[in-house]
Amino acid sequence: MSATPPFKRIALIGLGLIGSSLARGIQQLGLAGELVATDNSAAVRARAVEIKLADRIADDNASAVKDADLVIACVPVGVAGDVAKSIAAHLAPGAIVSDVGSVKASVLHAMSEYLPDNIHFIPAHPVAGTENSGPDSGFAELFSNRWCILTPPDGADPAAVEKLTGFWAALGANVEIMQAAHHDLVLAVTSHLPHLIAYTIVGTADELEDVTRSEVLKFSAGGFRDFTRIAASDPTMWRDVFLANKDAVLEMLGTFQEDLSKLTRAIRRDDGDALFEHFTRTRAIRRGIVSIGQDEAAPDFGRKHQALTKKAD
Amino acid sequence: MSATPPFKRIALIGLGLIGSSLARGIQQLGLAGELVATDNSAAVRARAVEIKLADRIADDNASAVKDADLVIACVPVGVAGDVAKSIAAHLAPGAIVSDVGSVKASVLHAMSEYLPDNIHFIPAHPVAGTENSGPDSGFAELFSNRWCILTPPDGADPAAVEKLTGFWAALGANVEIMQAAHHDLVLAVTSHLPHLIAYTIVGTADELEDVTRSEVLKFSAGGFRDFTRIAASDPTMWRDVFLANKDAVLEMLGTFQEDLSKLTRAIRRDDGDALFEHFTRTRAIRRGIVSIGQDEAAPDFGRKHQALTKKAD
Ligand SMILES: NC(=O)c1ccc[n+]([C@@H]2O[C@H](COP(=O)([O-])OP(=O)(O)OC[C@H]3O[C@@H](n4cnc5c(N)ncnc54)[C@H](OP(=O)(O)O)[C@@H]3O)[C@@H](O)[C@H]2O)c1
Ligand SMILES: NC(=O)c1ccc[n+]([C@@H]2O[C@H](COP(=O)([O-])OP(=O)(O)OC[C@H]3O[C@@H](n4cnc5c(N)ncnc54)[C@H](OP(=O)(O)O)[C@@H]3O)[C@@H](O)[C@H]2O)c1
Repeated sequence: MSATPPFKRIALIGLGLIGSSLARGIQQLGLAGELVATDNSAAVRARAVEIKLADRIADDNASAVKDADLVIACVPVGVAGDVAKSIAAHLAPGAIVSDVGSVKASVLHAMSEYLPDNIHFIPAHPVAGTENSGPDSGFAELFSNRWCILTPPDGADPAAVEKLTGFWAALGANVEIMQAAHHDLVLAVTSHLPHLIAYTIVGTADELEDVTRSEVLKFSAGGFRDFTRIAASDPTMWRDVFLANKDAVLEMLGTFQEDLSKLTRAIRRDDGDALFEHFTRTRAIRRGIVSIGQDEAAPDFGRKHQALTKKAD
Repeated sequence: MSATPPFKRIALIGLGLIGSSLARGIQQLGLAGELVATDNSAAVRARAVEIKLADRIADDNASAVKDADLVIACVPVGVAGDVAKSIAAHLAPGAIVSDVGSVKASVLHAMSEYLPDNIHFIPAHPVAGTENSGPDSGFAELFSNRWCILTPPDGADPAAVEKLTGFWAALGANVEIMQAAHHDLVLAVTSHLPHLIAYTIVGTADELEDVTRSEVLKFSAGGFRDFTRIAASDPTMWRDVFLANKDAVLEMLGTFQEDLSKLTRAIRRDDGDALFEHFTRTRAIRRGIVSIGQDEAAPDFGRKHQALTKKAD
């Protein structure tokens, strides 16, 4: 006997990595009576039909949200306001409207401007992803055992917050509620600054005069290759993130720069004790992440190694 | 019928990650008639006996190298000179003496000072590792499909270089020969700078006032956790690397700082086009690394995701 799905109709706007992962999870778990989805790009919509990402692929945002009791915008944060504008007049009263953007204060501001008062707007950010994008890169398990942060505006309806919490919990996520501004500060350090640093160092390595690109690639197993993964993330998404979370990112960059200067000075002055002390302290953080299950314990991210073979005698 | 092993007796000094990986590989492939090993630490020597890392565990460096035709120092680069001093008077004439240190010019200099003229000194650096250390962390396949760089001094015996090349090739490595100074520049960008940056950002995240350590750990899947792996590497090894390769590291840091300033300025000035252009360029590097087999193509380093389960109705 199949239970009644928690939502009658869910509408997803944007079918990239996050949207298509949600689509797969919603279908697999039966979270919607009907799943409707759409995307800006005709090619993505056609692909979505082909791989059956939803019960119905709508031609535009306005028709996608009709009669939906849950609408989730899964688009780059720079266009969140445009999406809100395109759907505002077509939303069903009482609907929950949410998003998945990596920055929250700017999205809250941009979308609120257009959304009507008779719906429940509750921004969200699942802290889960990969370096890939597009409708083929998604998978239902993406959010499993990861955190999803909700940033309901002051005065949000507790029942709507609870309903959205249940949705993310069904997808395997742990839900945390915070203020949008605090979210942006936390993510500036756990996500935005790491991406900026990775993008920088990969660019640096690519432009050296005395070291060839072929050398950089061949000897990347010394540590560099770890950075190339997140520096291969979607350029549109990340341009938007840095512009939308400018203040918090610049603040974190300032602190990072001070710390880098300290270590640089220690190297310049041959201060081995300062280096040793710092390197000992940072070990503990890795252990903490592994112990709460946010990364695997296997060394080298569990990368595989080919077995040795004896040469024929 | 078993072939004659390429070396009559191999001596390994230092049984951490690299030394114990070599020990396992040598035994598995039968590369030595006899494998002798030792370590500074009595605890490590005792453990090596327990897990049978060699045919014989010697009590000190001097007795370990007796009659060996290949000697490899697998110790932090800061003590390479001390090791050379401790073995110099006990080496068999014609022996090949090598190391595995992550910096080459300083090791070449420090060891040459003590080593006699009647042996072949050929420094080496396998560009392969994990964030773990100690005798239990090694495995025979560590060097498989990775590069090993040899930096023979001018006038080195070609036959000895070829013999050592064959040794690393047997362990599955590709061998490249370069000048020590060039090695140090290449590794400054593909390994030392990435480690310094990772150590810095992990330290930064741990010391913030407005973001708790618990938040850093919980939301680390946004990108930060990737950096924590290499920032969990051995403090002694890395202190020594930065002190031994100071000039090249400071040079690379200078270039990195300039590039970071450029991106920071782009964010401050809302220059989305500059960000987009940079982020598009860095994507290609990742593809290059995957295409030459120096990393796996699986998204998110192939991290596993738990399957979703429907809640009971
Ligand atoms: N990737 C991650 O790791 C990750 C993790 C957590 C949160 N997020 C957030 O999730 C959101 C989506 O990211 P993603 O990785 O899924 O990106 P993605 O794979 O690039 O997909 C975004 C999709 O949205 C479409 N789109 C753009 N503007 C639109 C509009 N006005 N109306 C309808 N569709 C539109 C895009 O179509 P076009 O092809 O026409 O541009 C594209 O197909 C972003 O806000 C990002 O910050 C991402
Ligand atoms: N880890 C990597 O990813 C990696 C990759 C490529 C190259 N390398 C290079 O490989 C070398 C070894 O690194 P590792 O990761 O194997 O380090 P490790 O796991 O820390 O092992 C080093 C071992 O050497 C011993 N040792 C120290 N001084 C000694 C001495 N004077 N005589 C004899 N033994 C001594 C240490 O004993 P104690 O316990 O007494 O200190 C320790 O057991 C370093 O030069 C490093 O730069 C490392």
